[in-house]
Amino acid sequence: NTWVPNIEPGSDFSIYNLPFGIVSTKSDPAPHVAAAIGSHILDLKVFFTHPEGPYHRPFPSFHEFDGFEALLLDVFSQPTLNAFAALGRAVRSKVRNTLQQLLVAQTPYPSVLRDNMPLRAAALLEDSEVTAMHLPMTIGDYTDFYAGYYHAHAVGTLFRGPDAALQPNYLHMPIGYHGRSSSIVVSDTPIRRPVGQVAHVGEDGKQIVSTGPTRKLDIELELGCFIASENRMGDSVDVDSAAKYVFGYVLLNDWSARDVQAWEYVPLGPFNGKNFATTISPWVVLAEAMEPYRTVPGHELDRKSLQPYLCEANTENVLDINLRVYLQTTAGVTTPITRTNSRYLIWSFPQMIAHHTLGGCPLRTGDLLGSGTISGPDGSYESGSLLEVTENGKKPLKLVQTGTRTFLEDGDTVIIRGFAGADWSRVGFGPCRGKIIGPSLKK
Amino acid sequence: NTWVPNIEPGSDFSIYNLPFGIVSTKSDPAPHVAAAIGSHILDLKVFFTHPEGPYHRPFPSFHEFDGFEALLLDVFSQPTLNAFAALGRAVRSKVRNTLQQLLVAQTPYPSVLRDNMPLRAAALLEDSEVTAMHLPMTIGDYTDFYAGYYHAHAVGTLFRGPDAALQPNYLHMPIGYHGRSSSIVVSDTPIRRPVGQVAHVGEDGKQIVSTGPTRKLDIELELGCFIASENRMGDSVDVDSAAKYVFGYVLLNDWSARDVQAWEYVPLGPFNGKNFATTISPWVVLAEAMEPYRTVPGHELDRKSLQPYLCEANTENVLDINLRVYLQTTAGVTTPITRTNSRYLIWSFPQMIAHHTLGGCPLRTGDLLGSGTISGPDGSYESGSLLEVTENGKKPLKLVQTGTRTFLEDGDTVIIRGFAGADWSRVGFGPCRGKIIGPSLKK
Ligand SMILES: [Ca+2]
Ligand SMILES: [Ca+2]
Ligand SMILES: [Mg+2]
Ligand SMILES: [Mg+2]
Ligand code: NI
Repeated sequence: NTWVPNIEPGSDFSIYNLPFGIVSTKSDPAPHVAAAIGSHILDLKVFFTHPEGPYHRPFPSFHEFDGFEALLLDVFSQPTLNAFAALGRAVRSKVRNTLQQLLVAQTPYPSVLRDNMPLRAAALLEDSEVTAMHLPMTIGDYTDFYAGYYHAHAVGTLFRGPDAALQPNYLHMPIGYHGRSSSIVVSDTPIRRPVGQVAHVGEDGKQIVSTGPTRKLDIELELGCFIASENRMGDSVDVDSAAKYVFGYVLLNDWSARDVQAWEYVPLGPFNGKNFATTISPWVVLAEAMEPYRTVPGHELDRKSLQPYLCEANTENVLDINLRVYLQTTAGVTTPITRTNSRYLIWSFPQMIAHHTLGGCPLRTGDLLGSGTISGPDGSYESGSLLEVTENGKKPLKLVQTGTRTFLEDGDTVIIRGFAGADWSRVGFGPCRGKIIGPSLKK
Repeated sequence: NTWVPNIEPGSDFSIYNLPFGIVSTKSDPAPHVAAAIGSHILDLKVFFTHPEGPYHRPFPSFHEFDGFEALLLDVFSQPTLNAFAALGRAVRSKVRNTLQQLLVAQTPYPSVLRDNMPLRAAALLEDSEVTAMHLPMTIGDYTDFYAGYYHAHAVGTLFRGPDAALQPNYLHMPIGYHGRSSSIVVSDTPIRRPVGQVAHVGEDGKQIVSTGPTRKLDIELELGCFIASENRMGDSVDVDSAAKYVFGYVLLNDWSARDVQAWEYVPLGPFNGKNFATTISPWVVLAEAMEPYRTVPGHELDRKSLQPYLCEANTENVLDINLRVYLQTTAGVTTPITRTNSRYLIWSFPQMIAHHTLGGCPLRTGDLLGSGTISGPDGSYESGSLLEVTENGKKPLKLVQTGTRTFLEDGDTVIIRGFAGADWSRVGFGPCRGKIIGPSLKK
């Protein structure tokens, strides 16, 4: 369904996807915008600035808006997607649709790209031409929610027993906290094992406090949602308008030091247990590409008990994205550890946005929302964290071939994958990957 | 001690202060950098770009560094202080010292400014020429600590009784959480009463959840600390080097909706109860100006029980800043409600920085740290929040002339003031002020 060569079945980047990201290439190391298609990228900076490109030659579709290409020309030379996101959904959809029309096998505009060899050679690059992927957005604020019902339930059961598993507020609002934006990194950035302050109870029953590398380094499988549009401070966003604020999605690994978190989090929430690193996948899958994959939540809220500001008219309000987590050891052996789906989120991103802005908190272009850890009902293979599957380290997880894990060891690589749709029409993310390196031990 | 006219005794902006801020003026509405001196500002953009200014005329002190003025020329035309902060403490001190030398009564360089009438007329402006003050920094991340010992103790006593007042971790680390940077506003920005979700127990003992304007709108008197220097992700900052990372200080009011916060904060901390607004004073008092006012904390930690990474060689590690809070009603009557001092912080900013970066979390230029609410040992007049002084609304506070308050009412204006030093050499902040406006009530 596209003339771009070498798309494999099961590629995350079918023509139905066309995610946007920030690349450096061999010919242009300055970070700029590209779209992914199969094993290629379409370098959008080159595409719009090339002398043989549509900006310099008549091309009806791009000439419908006054000043449209001039806008895009600048937007795609930027080192982040913020300017593109801020153009609004109508313009973004128009750009994506037009690019799809250029890339489809029977393109109505063959002369623009497919048969335009100088432009095609310059702008349609093998992914081996990409020398680096960068953080796709400048992230002002990062908020991490806790909307994974089975995760909240499993962790609550672990620490407080099955009768008090969910806190009294859990089913009334999307619980969330403010995260740290400065330590959000793109896939393949090495993750240093953090040093932290921890406490344990000694043999005499007394509390012993110490400082050292975390012994409970964990993952959190999450979906990330980038904000495109801004609300004015003091104004809330209506839940049924909130989808318009979404730019797109990424996979997110909210690395967590469980021993640090356990000691620090009362009463103000997680801090150093979380703020050392958060990894996201590099390609932003636009909201439009995920539209066909909306579904009802795997565990539905009782709508009658919801506050009106959280009652969404659309009941298919979460996404049907297959999620996988793999652990790869230094020996190169890979163990699948999680197989779940984002429909197990009990709160939708529109509900999170409506709640976040209820008191007038302003969202800005580039803000990132984490969904909270996503787990399915079967804790043995659907857990989005090692905390759950190993019951806080009590039940080691068997790896393929040899070895076990309670929490992560130095040298381990964690890979999250996610995709919706069938083999030839997948809408996926590419890997969200990070390798653990040893702690920094000073003096 | 300065030739600048009309400095009153008790002015926050003596020549020993010289804080930096971002102004719009009648002649130049584009936000840019100025320094405050008495009832005047020295417009630094004008000062460095004016044809009669030191950049264009020989002036030894500014010519000592290569490229120094060119740097400053650009830095002071910026709409935030980030570029100035990033120059490093040596350059910032040099700039401040040189400006002091120009402004002192017996200036060794009278021809540069004092007797240079064209420049003086253009750059030394009455504060009535300032049409707006702006947020002084672009704030990447905002972290709010909880280092006010007597506040933590009073609030803990209120909710858990005197025996369990402090959580077990409180004396072991500076407890903090990530705040919301998008809703930080400069003094005099009106504060809209937030709508939020709250819960109370009904007559039948059942929990009743509702949504509406907060009924417990409160203040938190805090000191803010802006970060100048960056640490690399993965690297921690040594506590004895941490002072170098500080750019300067502001007053901070962490507006809080106590009913919203009480319902939402378990287990991940405050969210909508805090993220609707945080007000800071507009002038950044540089760390250098506060150097003479270092002192020992009003309540000292037992150093023997401290983790080594928090043991500071310098025992005079907090600041001796007199803090005042006033409440002004719509009738224009002002009641002093708080009279305390920042030495009641039990953790210093260097300790907060060492803790924040322990696991490798990167700090960036422009990041803001809140100290936590500052209260003194006497809750009746030294409380940094209404929660404490009214015992969560049970004991109304008497206002001057007539009326009482438990929490804030629409139309109330809260003014925080802070200063160190004696009348003619004060180092103060100017007001940190906000007026409560009624909630936004949609349909
Ligand atoms: Ca999380
Ligand atoms: Ca606070
Ligand atoms: Mg994280
Ligand atoms: Mg606040
Ligand atoms: Ni010169």
